[in-house]
Amino acid sequence: MTSADANRRTIEERIRGIEDRLDIYNLIASHPPSADTGVKAYIRSIFVEEAVLDLGGAKTAAGNETISDMSQRPAHQEAIRAGLAHFAGLPHVEIDGDRAVVTSYLQILAPHPTAEPIDVPAHGVSKGYRVHRVGANRWELVRTPQGWKIKRRTYRTLDGTEPALDILRQALAG
Amino acid sequence: MTSADANRRTIEERIRGIEDRLDIYNLIASHPPSADTGVKAYIRSIFVEEAVLDLGGAKTAAGNETISDMSQRPAHQEAIRAGLAHFAGLPHVEIDGDRAVVTSYLQILAPHPTAEPIDVPAHGVSKGYRVHRVGANRWELVRTPQGWKIKRRTYRTLDGTEPALDILRQALAG
Amino acid sequence: MTSADANRRTIEERIRGIEDRLDIYNLIASHPPSADTGVKAYIRSIFVEEAVLDLGGAKTAAGNETISDMSQRPAHQEAIRAGLAHFAGLPHVEIDGDRAVVTSYLQILAPHPTAEPIDVPAHGVSKGYRVHRVGANRWELVRTPQGWKIKRRTYRTLDGTEPALDILRQALAG
Repeated sequence: MTSADANRRTIEERIRGIEDRLDIYNLIASHPPSADTGVKAYIRSIFVEEAVLDLGGAKTAAGNETISDMSQRPAHQEAIRAGLAHFAGLPHVEIDGDRAVVTSYLQILAPHPTAEPIDVPAHGVSKGYRVHRVGANRWELVRTPQGWKIKRRTYRTLDGTEPALDILRQALAG
Repeated sequence: MTSADANRRTIEERIRGIEDRLDIYNLIASHPPSADTGVKAYIRSIFVEEAVLDLGGAKTAAGNETISDMSQRPAHQEAIRAGLAHFAGLPHVEIDGDRAVVTSYLQILAPHPTAEPIDVPAHGVSKGYRVHRVGANRWELVRTPQGWKIKRRTYRTLDGTEPALDILRQALAG
Repeated sequence: MTSADANRRTIEERIRGIEDRLDIYNLIASHPPSADTGVKAYIRSIFVEEAVLDLGGAKTAAGNETISDMSQRPAHQEAIRAGLAHFAGLPHVEIDGDRAVVTSYLQILAPHPTAEPIDVPAHGVSKGYRVHRVGANRWELVRTPQGWKIKRRTYRTLDGTEPALDILRQALAG
């Protein structure tokens, strides 16, 4: 945002743009709590009806009903009971009118099942957590009468292959 | 925030709400530096006098003097000298007038004492860090004449048990 | 930000301050994608011409051309192909007119080369990632006609030594 850009917009437009940004931060910040608890109604509410969730390979789901159902599968519930933590970094956000693209890093952590317990002074004894996956998300959002919602979420593991690098490069080209 | 909500508030109210949000982001962002250095005066300043810190089990402290004293204990200072890193994810923030609730993920990391050193090209050789704990924070904040301060911080380890899941679910219900 | 501070500034000044803050969040959020892809033109564009990058020890570079060249070295490209993830926590931001200081935590992760593969239900099998480094960044930014840019970035590993603790303490003194 340069001064020239700011000068071309009204106060109302500028405040609206800022509120959009903050609404989007909260939407992205709500993803880890929703994934780590599996609250289906909430997950359904943040995707548009025809949304697509593309986690790579065969792990694709279409529709907010199907996407939110994924959190109810026994395997996902088992992961939650074992201690599951989605951890979101600072996202990069680009808003263009009623659409926005967010690029964010995500870690998926779980308690380490086999490591030796270690004592960190004043912080107790713990086997620690494993960082199971680290990946890049591309969130394509749309403004709706009920606020910003997810139209498409694409996630790729950061393993040196092109799909993840492509997501990151697109953030820089925005 | 829907358009209807925005329309009911004045420009002044909307800007104030945005500034509140940004002040709160900085408050939460200052927690890791305060914990990892143990600067008592700063820690005391960000809690209200009657604040409660509830870290689970018996680890509860009442009053900003007592809370800030915790950073001065020999065990905490020992952890700092060994390399302690509190790492904060993107927080979820809900403001309601002069009160706010923040839900955030936190990692507590420390240098790995026993792992084999590994060379990452262009990034040196390191034994790496252990993720000692991952947990959920619920921060209950209040507006004071000196800015937003912490009235209660509740932290629970994300180990699949209900206390941590409860903190996360409350963020989704906001 | 207290009410008194807010009252002394015009609506235009306050909105500008907020937009500055959000621009700075996006700048910091673009660092991991730029480091993990090595897009030289982008990296050059976010540093001022005479910028300094101080990574500790002998790892110092001067000038945006030299700094952006670092991403092109074979060793860095090798790290990218093996799966490199810079992971940014919530930054602390202080703006003073046309200058700003950002303090942020950074993890550098890479796929674990030797760990046993582990299955996390509904999240696949993975050897996991190592947290290779955790450190503190101090970003000194300046406003330019092309937006906020980096004048100096200082990074120190959080290993209990003074250089990293100094960066964190400065954020609390701001």
